[in-house]
Amino acid sequence: MLRMPGLAACSVPRMTQQLDAAIRQSPEARVQAWLADFESALAARDIGRVVAQFAPDGIWRDLVAFTWNIKTVESREGIVDMLRARLADTDPSGFRTRETPTDDGGGVASAFIEFETAVGRGVGHLRLKGDLGWTLLTALDELKGHEEPIGSRRVLGAVHGADPESRSWAEKRADQDATLGYSQQPYVLVVGGGQGGIALGARLRQLGVPAIVIDKHARPGDNWRERYKTLCLHDPVWYDHFPYLPFPANWPVFSPKDKIADWLEFYTRVMEIPYWTSTTCLSASFDAQAEQWTVEVDRGGERLTLRPTHLVLATGMAGKANVPELPGQNVFRGDQHHSSEHPGPDGYVGKRAVVIGSGTSAHDICKALYENGTDVTMVQRASTLVVTSEAVLEIGLGGLYSEQAAAAGIGTEKADLTVASLPYRIIADFQKPISDAMRLRDKDLYDRLEKAGFSLDFGDDDSGQFMKYLRRGGGFYIDVGASDLICDGSIKLCHGGVERLTEGSVILDDGTELPADLVVYATGFRSMNSFVADFISQDVADKVGKVWGLGSGTTQDPAPWEGELRNMWKPTQQQNLWFHGGNLHQSRHYSLFLALQLKARCAGIPTPVYGLQQVHHQS
Amino acid sequence: MLRMPGLAACSVPRMTQQLDAAIRQSPEARVQAWLADFESALAARDIGRVVAQFAPDGIWRDLVAFTWNIKTVESREGIVDMLRARLADTDPSGFRTRETPTDDGGGVASAFIEFETAVGRGVGHLRLKGDLGWTLLTALDELKGHEEPIGSRRVLGAVHGADPESRSWAEKRADQDATLGYSQQPYVLVVGGGQGGIALGARLRQLGVPAIVIDKHARPGDNWRERYKTLCLHDPVWYDHFPYLPFPANWPVFSPKDKIADWLEFYTRVMEIPYWTSTTCLSASFDAQAEQWTVEVDRGGERLTLRPTHLVLATGMAGKANVPELPGQNVFRGDQHHSSEHPGPDGYVGKRAVVIGSGTSAHDICKALYENGTDVTMVQRASTLVVTSEAVLEIGLGGLYSEQAAAAGIGTEKADLTVASLPYRIIADFQKPISDAMRLRDKDLYDRLEKAGFSLDFGDDDSGQFMKYLRRGGGFYIDVGASDLICDGSIKLCHGGVERLTEGSVILDDGTELPADLVVYATGFRSMNSFVADFISQDVADKVGKVWGLGSGTTQDPAPWEGELRNMWKPTQQQNLWFHGGNLHQSRHYSLFLALQLKARCAGIPTPVYGLQQVHHQS
Repeated sequence: MLRMPGLAACSVPRMTQQLDAAIRQSPEARVQAWLADFESALAARDIGRVVAQFAPDGIWRDLVAFTWNIKTVESREGIVDMLRARLADTDPSGFRTRETPTDDGGGVASAFIEFETAVGRGVGHLRLKGDLGWTLLTALDELKGHEEPIGSRRVLGAVHGADPESRSWAEKRADQDATLGYSQQPYVLVVGGGQGGIALGARLRQLGVPAIVIDKHARPGDNWRERYKTLCLHDPVWYDHFPYLPFPANWPVFSPKDKIADWLEFYTRVMEIPYWTSTTCLSASFDAQAEQWTVEVDRGGERLTLRPTHLVLATGMAGKANVPELPGQNVFRGDQHHSSEHPGPDGYVGKRAVVIGSGTSAHDICKALYENGTDVTMVQRASTLVVTSEAVLEIGLGGLYSEQAAAAGIGTEKADLTVASLPYRIIADFQKPISDAMRLRDKDLYDRLEKAGFSLDFGDDDSGQFMKYLRRGGGFYIDVGASDLICDGSIKLCHGGVERLTEGSVILDDGTELPADLVVYATGFRSMNSFVADFISQDVADKVGKVWGLGSGTTQDPAPWEGELRNMWKPTQQQNLWFHGGNLHQSRHYSLFLALQLKARCAGIPTPVYGLQQVHHQS
Repeated sequence: MLRMPGLAACSVPRMTQQLDAAIRQSPEARVQAWLADFESALAARDIGRVVAQFAPDGIWRDLVAFTWNIKTVESREGIVDMLRARLADTDPSGFRTRETPTDDGGGVASAFIEFETAVGRGVGHLRLKGDLGWTLLTALDELKGHEEPIGSRRVLGAVHGADPESRSWAEKRADQDATLGYSQQPYVLVVGGGQGGIALGARLRQLGVPAIVIDKHARPGDNWRERYKTLCLHDPVWYDHFPYLPFPANWPVFSPKDKIADWLEFYTRVMEIPYWTSTTCLSASFDAQAEQWTVEVDRGGERLTLRPTHLVLATGMAGKANVPELPGQNVFRGDQHHSSEHPGPDGYVGKRAVVIGSGTSAHDICKALYENGTDVTMVQRASTLVVTSEAVLEIGLGGLYSEQAAAAGIGTEKADLTVASLPYRIIADFQKPISDAMRLRDKDLYDRLEKAGFSLDFGDDDSGQFMKYLRRGGGFYIDVGASDLICDGSIKLCHGGVERLTEGSVILDDGTELPADLVVYATGFRSMNSFVADFISQDVADKVGKVWGLGSGTTQDPAPWEGELRNMWKPTQQQNLWFHGGNLHQSRHYSLFLALQLKARCAGIPTPVYGLQQVHHQS
């Protein structure tokens, strides 16, 4: 959730005399001159000349195009190291702007760019500070000779002329379904068929990579259907589009969970994704010699062994439910469950509920319980970030993902590229003024929340909700009404840890006793590698380490600095094991880069990985 | 299937000196001056001044905006008559261009326009010959106060703040499904849930008109699924988009029938169309006093009486199967069925088939049978128009419905408006040069077809395939390969009528005996009012008369001239009975005008119909 503010809002270092002179040139002239010099230095393999074009704090973010990795190199030294390893192989050329460069203020010019490599075509973004490169994004967009059959390259469908293939489309599809996973092994197995697995499945299908998406539920979309009944997406429709098929213009701003579930089911079908429902992964092991996985699955009662080359975990960027172990859980006579298992408020009319936690699920569940006539108490264990949905729409996303942005020509692809163009190192600098503007906008709510005793924060460095999402994937609530209910006491509020449960109550650290018929543990999720321990092994889980987070050294995101999200969409320390997920925006955009990495391997294109991440944390 | 050629290709009358002077002005200046004068004359209710702005052969086509009808008035006298009846009520204003007018050559300038009426907002198109109006299209686009909740007006989805409505989206949907047709009567009942009924259902749902679409099949899309297995759409994807949700960029050019079926099924779901499967209409009668229909339906074995105000037949623009009665049909020992019942070639390997007819179905079925190893003979009863699919794509549709058109900014809406802008009176003039170009392009094929004995035509007046479609809805084949098989004798060809069948053969008029294990009657369909006779009454069928056709006085389209397609999408002689259908383009575009007519009535907006059609033919 990011807006590109006028860069005047950010601290751009003071320009030297020389740069001031450069700035008198138009953004267009500066960008074109820079790209021409850049290309000529790259062509000459003159790394010294390339790097001299970057500012000392220049940052190059590469999505698969140069590094066969998702990798950000920071500083001139980092750029030199990457290019020494990757320039010759990559053989980049044809750098050009996609549209007229713009003046972002503060001496900064920016441009969307295109280029080619030896094996692919790329897009990207360049920001110049004066006439030096500040940020460069290079992103692989397609592989030469493996372009997607879309637009003018779409398939014909009907076979014109006498057709030696007498099978119809439906028969061919049925034959594929009957053989893939049986007589033909998939090249990729995607475990988890929520929005992430489905978006990736669609891209792999387009790219002609034999892949199966498996999911434990009976129907695509059940991962949403089975959640509490009032759940709606907290991100707006413009942020949530799937690859290839955007939501129609009549789609609600915030999709109800059953509606998004129907969409997922529909999308899976019309995108012709090989999707196995009611299928669970029992175990998986990798044969390093054969470079192949052996995966035991249960498909609706049928036990099968699959031998994919690559295994993708798309089981939710939040891993397994994190349920605290508390004394007295075994004697408590009411219902108790993790938020992910909460059935909704219908069974609890006139009852008393204690919801432990103060994140998104806690707020949503408290609101629905209260509205349904349940006496509900939220137990806040730690300070929480609250932003209003309206502030996110107006200030956070409006510039890139909104009706207005679309009308101004900022479509999903351009918006995604804009978001990707900001290296994580400097995102917080862009997010702080946004967070400050939201705090000002909703000062009244924040005052009332504090008066009601709610413990607020805006991130360790006041950088706001989006940074909290990137760093730890939680610790916030996008307010759609529960905050008012907390302010006016409709949802009761307590603080502190839970000491124990009794037969009929929750006892807090300070001795407070909360009578309860229902306890909901809205206590979050563990790192995604917890799934690895489950069906591969603890060794492999430890080897790949913590998933998500940037290494920012803030709460729940320990240093050292990583520069990219840990383990997401890129090679891991376990050969041929990948992680995919995130919100709908990330599932859409990063599924492209994961799909291209898999396609390149499937097509036998060499993919030497630069800068494979090191593991510093196990969970 | 229409391209807008340079108007130089058409016969534009020689301009007078005065007009020549006018033409020295820019198209923009001419259009703006015309619109300003037009609006001022309309505002003054000065019909004489209005009509003086039109050329003597000026034509005004109105889609619901002025006439509450689909009506073309030809000549100044026609325009005067329409305005006398409708100008005051309509109260039009705000005529303006949507984009810069263009010079179409030959003294013709054209422009897309917008305007308002007392109750709605409209779009349209204007062609000037010199400075006089030649063609004017006025089309209602939305009703004031009843705008669709799309784009910036879309619904929020999530309820922010404390929500007095505790039902979730899924629960509200379930409640609606449980009440509509039971405790709540639909305002509109749509009989037939193929592409036409579904597109209309989607629009009525958006407009908040309580409507049910019923269909006899078990699943939406089964009207396609149950056809012969090799069937593909013969119109390309760009022509076939549905309202609100265009096909994705990876959709095949020509959709296989099972793929379009899947699309229909899920479109129905995500558009939340109240759709009753396995439901047949048993009978319907109209109570003129109560202005209400009584409709008996069977819903999966449950007998129900529905009382809708309006009844829409969307049972296919082709009506009931037209099966000839032939001596010997009762003794023939093989399979015999109408093309609409043909199961596909699988059961006929090594058998002998006779296909009677030479239209689209006949060709498709012959091709699939031949490719599957059946000995197949086509019996051509009358000359047939053949165009190649490539010619239709390149010459017929390319300018409006293609990847290139979309890239040039001609989206579906603009293309549809362009097609609608040509009054039927002059379409043939535009189509003749297109048909001529196609004949030139594919001269080799036509030579070979004639050499093979195939009897070709290009329409009574050589105006080509699109005109045949409009006039009689058949008599042509868009070649996707069968023609080559006829040329090389793979599909055998005979001519003439069928005299009778024997136990094992078909005997033609000339005595030829064709041994046969299978006879397929690809003999077309009757007029759509044949359905009316079935479940309303023969009286009402006769009262509404023939459906489709223009009254062109050509084969199967008898005079007098109608100016619009008979009975389609507009009021009929039977109060509150409507017909909807056509190809995917028509189902998409004209469902809007039918939906707006129904919405206006539902909302209590007066809808006095100008120029209700007279009935000249019963079938």
